[in-house]
Amino acid sequence: MKKVLIANRGEIAVRIIRACKELGIETVAVYSEADREALHVKLADEAYCIGPKLSKDSYLSFPAVLGVAQKTGVDGIHPGYGFLAENADFAESCEHVGIKFIGPSSDSIKIMGIKDVARSTMEEAGVPLVPGTGIVPDIETGKKWASEIGYPVIIKATAGGGGKGIRVARTEEDLVKGIEITQKEAAAAFGNPGVYLEKFIEYFRHCEIQVLADAHGNVVHLGERDCTVQRRMQKLVEEAPSPALSEERRAEMGAAAVKAAQACDYEGAGTIEFIYDYQADQFYFMEMNTRIQVEHPVTEMITGVDLVQQQLKIAAGEPLPFTQEDIKINGWAIECRINAENAYKNFMPSAGTVDTYITPGGFGVRVDSAVYAGYTIPPYYDSMVAKLIVHADSREEAIAKMSRALSEFEVDGPGINTTIPFHHALMNNEVFQSGKFNTKFLEENDILQTAKKEETPAGE
Amino acid sequence: MKKVLIANRGEIAVRIIRACKELGIETVAVYSEADREALHVKLADEAYCIGPKLSKDSYLSFPAVLGVAQKTGVDGIHPGYGFLAENADFAESCEHVGIKFIGPSSDSIKIMGIKDVARSTMEEAGVPLVPGTGIVPDIETGKKWASEIGYPVIIKATAGGGGKGIRVARTEEDLVKGIEITQKEAAAAFGNPGVYLEKFIEYFRHCEIQVLADAHGNVVHLGERDCTVQRRMQKLVEEAPSPALSEERRAEMGAAAVKAAQACDYEGAGTIEFIYDYQADQFYFMEMNTRIQVEHPVTEMITGVDLVQQQLKIAAGEPLPFTQEDIKINGWAIECRINAENAYKNFMPSAGTVDTYITPGGFGVRVDSAVYAGYTIPPYYDSMVAKLIVHADSREEAIAKMSRALSEFEVDGPGINTTIPFHHALMNNEVFQSGKFNTKFLEENDILQTAKKEETPAGE
Repeated sequence: MKKVLIANRGEIAVRIIRACKELGIETVAVYSEADREALHVKLADEAYCIGPKLSKDSYLSFPAVLGVAQKTGVDGIHPGYGFLAENADFAESCEHVGIKFIGPSSDSIKIMGIKDVARSTMEEAGVPLVPGTGIVPDIETGKKWASEIGYPVIIKATAGGGGKGIRVARTEEDLVKGIEITQKEAAAAFGNPGVYLEKFIEYFRHCEIQVLADAHGNVVHLGERDCTVQRRMQKLVEEAPSPALSEERRAEMGAAAVKAAQACDYEGAGTIEFIYDYQADQFYFMEMNTRIQVEHPVTEMITGVDLVQQQLKIAAGEPLPFTQEDIKINGWAIECRINAENAYKNFMPSAGTVDTYITPGGFGVRVDSAVYAGYTIPPYYDSMVAKLIVHADSREEAIAKMSRALSEFEVDGPGINTTIPFHHALMNNEVFQSGKFNTKFLEENDILQTAKKEETPAGE
Repeated sequence: MKKVLIANRGEIAVRIIRACKELGIETVAVYSEADREALHVKLADEAYCIGPKLSKDSYLSFPAVLGVAQKTGVDGIHPGYGFLAENADFAESCEHVGIKFIGPSSDSIKIMGIKDVARSTMEEAGVPLVPGTGIVPDIETGKKWASEIGYPVIIKATAGGGGKGIRVARTEEDLVKGIEITQKEAAAAFGNPGVYLEKFIEYFRHCEIQVLADAHGNVVHLGERDCTVQRRMQKLVEEAPSPALSEERRAEMGAAAVKAAQACDYEGAGTIEFIYDYQADQFYFMEMNTRIQVEHPVTEMITGVDLVQQQLKIAAGEPLPFTQEDIKINGWAIECRINAENAYKNFMPSAGTVDTYITPGGFGVRVDSAVYAGYTIPPYYDSMVAKLIVHADSREEAIAKMSRALSEFEVDGPGINTTIPFHHALMNNEVFQSGKFNTKFLEENDILQTAKKEETPAGE
């Protein structure tokens, strides 16, 4: 692997360029017309404009990306996350033109991308599944299946993902409506109307296991990440390890993740997401993400393993340089996603030109960002400003470190708001500090409101 | 320890504020009139102007600093490095007013600050010393002693330090002149004309051991730092561990450092500097620095121990939370001191207003800095812009990471130059990469010139 094209933008493009540089690999950036001043363009060895601002015309365009790849003679394409990362057709196109897609095979992506196929593959492999069904053939069968599972049930589009194409039904009436709407939406959004049912576990934690699999059949897991702090099913804060898992359950979840990766002949870095029913102390397969994830740094911090470098090495055919026994968990890591959103106004997007950009530093603080003072955050893509990651000996110390790092972080400019105040309030929230919460935590607690009250002196 | 005054400025003041915040300690900053816009002023809970720009009227003023300390009711004063850090009189003044000087006792500072006392204390403790003498009483005795040791010898002012008050004599003629000049200079600079002689070891590496000692008699060392990359006796790059020490010598040096700390009843964080004669594979005590050092982060990166937090805890009377056996060395760390100096013009100071300030980030990269975009670096103090520290599994990977981090680091503004190009050339220099060099490396190699030649295509 001598030269790699990065088919992405923002912090993940910068992240991949960094890994390439450290391995002595030349880098080719691609960018839309809206991203001329982007940091990934500045940092790559070569950079090519591949189309207008809308990602469908640039970052998602097979011919544009593959054209640059062929012109520049790269050995591989790293898709990052989002955009083309879990697009089996794109992976297949790369395979056809003989450029290594840095990720799993198109077949693995397909197996894990189609939810009912993933479910049956996992079932065969012995990975625990939430009680559920196959594709619902008609409403009557749906009703029958739902009453067998017991309400509430969840209706899921088989082609959905990332919190889309999901609906809860608490009654048969809900179910009938829900199946119809979800089928229609799924047909429109994903071109596949298939839905299936699952037992709805209302109170749970989101735990996920990072795996690395090489082309020689070796699979290693790198422990779990806890991504329970979510807002509308979008992750906001991730930590590793999880404050909720026992050593026993952790080991079982790790072993299940390795089985999941083996079952789909996986290659590269992947994540198996689990629903952890903490009341029953049981976990169930949720889905597998066949890419590097936004929250991968927390795993890097506690294991010392550079996941993106490993992706590149695996793509080059190298065997994993460690076995399961070599992976040691060291300390505690937390990541806050700093988005250009106004947390006081329902997380409304608030992008613009960044005049002041002072990032925190010091011991145990990592910043993964593509923003700099003078940069205009374009409104066409995601709203991420930076990932702020800390590492310390214990969860308590990591929270204290994150709190101080957030207090140093300044992002200012006309119209710009960020989620920094939200994260700061969260780090100082007693429930968060206790480690005892579930995915409804933010829905049921107005973190910012609570923080404001505490700041008001008594009697005022 | 509930509230601490930081009697310093720049990156070390920011470093100390960070440690305090993470421990829940309130912070009081002091600043000169030239430092109103300094980052440590912005980050502290309270900040007070203590005088005009010249440090003798502000940062070095006992009444100014102690006045704020008493007014704000702090429990301790952290002196950082430089300024009041190794001033036994200041430590004594703190002791008198009942405010904890966060560092060793004034007696320990005195023992280690007066070089011939330090030497005799170390001799008694069994710490290896370079063959040398007591204070030279007169020229004739000096000549006699020098011929006994054998030329070349080094003439050292007993009150000197940091590369000042040192002179080499290769002949008797040199010696006579050297003693006279050094005595005069020392009398003027340090108020103490005493000089002594030592065998001059021309080719050596600078290795130093970090120690932590609590108030209960526990002393632990945290391995060595290698600070062999120096220019005119000023350290430019530090790494840990040292590429030159065997495991055996490392253990011996660590044990000697613990003895040295015990011999002066040390408390807090300190560093014992050694001359490592790699040709003879022998090491000798050079001096002890009774403060936190600029290069402390490399030790933090490979041990996971926050040295400044430990200073604060030790000052509060807490016992060390670990024993020698708990200290494990993990990977490799390198620090580059990024100074506002023009490396192409003899490292001429080049301070000014920083318009662009893009710091590197990502996995294993740490930035300790007090600079931000829009900040004017005042010309009255040291020229440090930032300490860039990296951590990786091996020395080779750490060098690659430092090289990529340097390539991301942008510091621009009218009249501003930094040592970034020098460091970048150094990381790509084969001799540096080999790990085989001594303190004369930069004197004997024009790193930037070599790099330039390599960049020029053949035939041009």
